[in-house]
Amino acid sequence: MSNLDNIFRDLVIANRILAKEEVVDAYGHVSIRRPDNPNHFLIARSLAPDLVTADDIVELDLDGQPVRNEKRTLYLERFIHAAIFEARPEVMAVVHAHAEDTLPFGIADATRLQPVIHSGSFIGSEVPVWDIADNFGDTNLLVTNLEQARDLAKCLGGNNVALMRGHGFAAAGRSLIEVVRMSVYLPRNARALLRAKQLGGRIKYLSRGEIDARNRGYSPYSTETWRAWEYWANKAGVGDLLTRPEA
Amino acid sequence: MSNLDNIFRDLVIANRILAKEEVVDAYGHVSIRRPDNPNHFLIARSLAPDLVTADDIVELDLDGQPVRNEKRTLYLERFIHAAIFEARPEVMAVVHAHAEDTLPFGIADATRLQPVIHSGSFIGSEVPVWDIADNFGDTNLLVTNLEQARDLAKCLGGNNVALMRGHGFAAAGRSLIEVVRMSVYLPRNARALLRAKQLGGRIKYLSRGEIDARNRGYSPYSTETWRAWEYWANKAGVGDLLTRPEA
Amino acid sequence: MSNLDNIFRDLVIANRILAKEEVVDAYGHVSIRRPDNPNHFLIARSLAPDLVTADDIVELDLDGQPVRNEKRTLYLERFIHAAIFEARPEVMAVVHAHAEDTLPFGIADATRLQPVIHSGSFIGSEVPVWDIADNFGDTNLLVTNLEQARDLAKCLGGNNVALMRGHGFAAAGRSLIEVVRMSVYLPRNARALLRAKQLGGRIKYLSRGEIDARNRGYSPYSTETWRAWEYWANKAGVGDLLTRPEA
Amino acid sequence: MSNLDNIFRDLVIANRILAKEEVVDAYGHVSIRRPDNPNHFLIARSLAPDLVTADDIVELDLDGQPVRNEKRTLYLERFIHAAIFEARPEVMAVVHAHAEDTLPFGIADATRLQPVIHSGSFIGSEVPVWDIADNFGDTNLLVTNLEQARDLAKCLGGNNVALMRGHGFAAAGRSLIEVVRMSVYLPRNARALLRAKQLGGRIKYLSRGEIDARNRGYSPYSTETWRAWEYWANKAGVGDLLTRPEA
Repeated sequence: MSNLDNIFRDLVIANRILAKEEVVDAYGHVSIRRPDNPNHFLIARSLAPDLVTADDIVELDLDGQPVRNEKRTLYLERFIHAAIFEARPEVMAVVHAHAEDTLPFGIADATRLQPVIHSGSFIGSEVPVWDIADNFGDTNLLVTNLEQARDLAKCLGGNNVALMRGHGFAAAGRSLIEVVRMSVYLPRNARALLRAKQLGGRIKYLSRGEIDARNRGYSPYSTETWRAWEYWANKAGVGDLLTRPEA
Repeated sequence: MSNLDNIFRDLVIANRILAKEEVVDAYGHVSIRRPDNPNHFLIARSLAPDLVTADDIVELDLDGQPVRNEKRTLYLERFIHAAIFEARPEVMAVVHAHAEDTLPFGIADATRLQPVIHSGSFIGSEVPVWDIADNFGDTNLLVTNLEQARDLAKCLGGNNVALMRGHGFAAAGRSLIEVVRMSVYLPRNARALLRAKQLGGRIKYLSRGEIDARNRGYSPYSTETWRAWEYWANKAGVGDLLTRPEA
Repeated sequence: MSNLDNIFRDLVIANRILAKEEVVDAYGHVSIRRPDNPNHFLIARSLAPDLVTADDIVELDLDGQPVRNEKRTLYLERFIHAAIFEARPEVMAVVHAHAEDTLPFGIADATRLQPVIHSGSFIGSEVPVWDIADNFGDTNLLVTNLEQARDLAKCLGGNNVALMRGHGFAAAGRSLIEVVRMSVYLPRNARALLRAKQLGGRIKYLSRGEIDARNRGYSPYSTETWRAWEYWANKAGVGDLLTRPEA
Repeated sequence: MSNLDNIFRDLVIANRILAKEEVVDAYGHVSIRRPDNPNHFLIARSLAPDLVTADDIVELDLDGQPVRNEKRTLYLERFIHAAIFEARPEVMAVVHAHAEDTLPFGIADATRLQPVIHSGSFIGSEVPVWDIADNFGDTNLLVTNLEQARDLAKCLGGNNVALMRGHGFAAAGRSLIEVVRMSVYLPRNARALLRAKQLGGRIKYLSRGEIDARNRGYSPYSTETWRAWEYWANKAGVGDLLTRPEA
C-alpha cells in the first residue's frame, strides 16, 4: 500500500465487497484515511458502492469538505467518517452501513449485541447504541453535519462499532481490510446471537480474554486475513484489482 | 420525464427492479399515472414483471378499462390501481405485490407494522390492514372489480401502504421512483420489526416527527433517491434504459 | 399438450423449475401421468432434477416398474408416484420433495400447516402428516416399496398435499402446472405461517369458503396460471422449451 | 478413485462444493487421507476453498507437517485434520467449517443438535459440543496445535460431528463424498430443528433405529449418493472434473 494508486484500488475493492456481501445496498459507504496526510480521507462521491470506480473517489478533509474543487454531489453522511477520523488518530478506515441483520439490535432494548462467534470478535466487547434522538430530537435520522457526527463519534468512544438506532452502524478499523471484514462478520454475529436466543438457555458469549487474544493476533496482511480479502474480491468480480504489498 | 418514451422506459425499469428485489414474482404489478392525462394510467398486460418490455405496456382508464382496442389479457387486479388513482389525485404511481415478509403482518393480529428503520419511514405511521372478507365474504382473495378496489382504496385512505390480509399489499406514491423504493424497503422494515420482537424488550419505533422529517426531505430526483434507482436498475440488468431529467 | 413431445418438454421444465425455486436439490422428483394411458406415468431416471433432459425420462407402470427394458437406475422412491396415481384417478401429476421450510411442520406437533396466503390455497384445508414409523417402525425413512407408498397415499386421501415426518412432502395435482405451482408456494405458505406465529396473537387462516372459491377458479392454461409457468421456466433457463396449447 | 489424480480432482470438487453451498466462506477446509498411505493426508494450502485448484493441494503427515519442502503458508488449523485422522483409522475425510446455522447450537445450551430430517441422519445421534476454553482457557478460539486438536478429537470420540463453541464444527466421514454431504445437510438439519422449536410442541427426532437404518444403507458410490455429488459439482461449476469409478 505504498502508493496512492493502490489505495484507490483497495477502496474500489472495499466498495464492491461490501455490496456483494450485502453489507450495503445503494446506501452505505467506506472510507480510508490518507497514510501520508492524516487530515485527509478518501471516499466515493454519492454513488452506490457497487458502481464505484477509481474515478469516483474524492478526497475530503476532517470537516467533511472536499479538498479540491468538486462539482459532484457528495454523500450527505460523509461527516460520520470525518468525525471518527478526527476523534481517533489510530483509525485508518471507516464503514457506515445499514446491514439488515444489525438493525434489530438497535431497535429492541432487551439484548445487547456482543461477540458470540470468533469471526465476530473484532466488533469488540462493547457495542454502544447511539440514538440520534437523544441529543437532536426528531430528525430524518441521517447524520448530516459535524455536530451530529461528533456526537456519534463520542458514543463510539474507543470501541470498534456503534449501532445507530433505526438506521445502521458505524465501524472503525486500523486498516481497510480490517473494517471491511468487521462489517461482513458483524451481521453474521448478529444472526448467530439472535438464533441462539431463539434456541434458549444460557448464551456463551466470547470472554473478554478471548476477544483480546484474537485482537492481539490480528494483522492486516497476514495470510489468514488476506485469504478473505482475496476471496471476497474475486467473488465481487474485482479480483484483477488486487495488489498485495511485499511481506 | 418530459416525454412518454421515458415514462415507458421507467415503467419497464420499475417492473424489473421489483422482480430482481423479490417484491414480485410472477404476480404483482406496478403502474404510473399519465402526467398529461390524470384519468389514464400505464401498466403492463398480464405478464410476469421480469419479462415486461415497453411493448407490453397498455393504457387504462380509471375504470380499469383499456383506452385502445386491446386483445391481450389484462391483469385481473388492475382495478386496484384504477381505484387508488381515482381516490388520490396526488398519487402518481401504484404497486400491488405479495412480498413474502409483509404477509405475516396481515395474518397475525398482535403486531402492527410500523416504521422501525429510516428507509422504512416512507410507509408512513399508519399501515392499515384490509381484509376483503369484511365486506365481501368468501372470495378468491383477488381484487377483481371496482367495488372491491374502491373498498381497498377507502381502507388505504390517505396512507401510503395498506396490507391485504392473506394476500399482499398496495402502495401509493407521488412518483414511480418513490413507490418502488417504498416497496423494496417495506419488507425490510417488516423483517427488522419481526426480529426486533424476537430479541425482546421495548421496541423503538420511528417517531411521528422522524417520519415527517424524512418525508419533508424527499425528492424523486435528488442525488440520494436517484442513487438507489440507478443501482437497482443496473442490478436488474436494465441500466441502459435509465434516463435522468435535467436538474 | 396434445402430443408426447410436449409432455416430455413440460416435464423437463417442471424439473428445472423445482430445482431453481429450491423445492428440490439433488433429491425430489416430479411425474406426469400419460393422458393416453392412465396406467403409465413419466418420470426422470435417478438424476438431480436440475440436470434432467428429455432423454432422461422413463415410463413406469402403476407398480413403479419400467414399461420398457431399462438399464438405468430408477428413483428408489418412484413408488410414491405409482401409489398416488393408483389411488387417485383424477390426479395427473405428482411431486415428492424435501423443501426445507416444509420440514418443521412435520417435526413439531403444535402447529398444523394450513393455508394463510392466497397462493397457498391450493394445498387445501387439510394437510395430513404421514409418519412412516407408525406402520413400518424404524426405517431409513425412504418410501421404497408399494406397501409403504400405498400407506402414504391412504394418509393423503383426497387431499392435495401430505407432509412426511422428518422427510418432506408429497403433492398431487390435476395438472403438471398445478402441482409445480403448489410445490413452489407450499414452502412460502409455511414460512408465512411460521412468522405470523412469531408475531403472535390470533392467526387468520384462509376460510374453507376462500379455499373453495380459489379452487373453483383454477385452470391450468389460464393467462394467470401460465404467467407463473412462463416466468419460472425463463428464470430456470428453459424458456425455449415452452409450448402453450391453443386456447 | 484408483489413482492420485482422481483424488486431487475430487478434493478440488469438494472445496468448490463447500464454498458454493455456503458451508465455508474464505475459511474452513476439507481433507482426504491418502488411501495408499494412511499416515498422510491431502489438503489445500492456506487459500479460500472457492479458489482451490489441484496445484494448491499439499500433503501433510499426522503431525500436521508437510511431507515435502513447502514454502507456501498452510492452514493454521490443519491440526484438526491430523488429530482426527490419527484417532480414527476408519475416517478417510474431514471437514472443518463455520457454517452459519450450526453456530447457535454451540452457543446456546438449551437445545442439543440431533437429526430431525432424514438427510441429517449422518451427523449421528450424538453431536458433542467442544469448548476450547474448558481445557485451554482464553484463546483466539483457533485450534493451532496438536494438543488442542487431540482434545477436540477426544471430544468427537466415535461420533461423526463435533460442534465447536463460538467457532464452527468438525466432521469426519468414511469417504470424501460422505463428509461433504454431511457438511451440507448439517446446517439444514440445524435450521429445521430451530424452526420446529419455534412452531412449538413436541419435537419428533429421528429414532436411533432410523439413524442406524440410514447408516447401514450408505454407500459412497451408490447412484443415490452420486446424484448429489454430481449435482453439487455441476452447480459449483466443476462438473468437468467429475470422475466416477467403475461399479
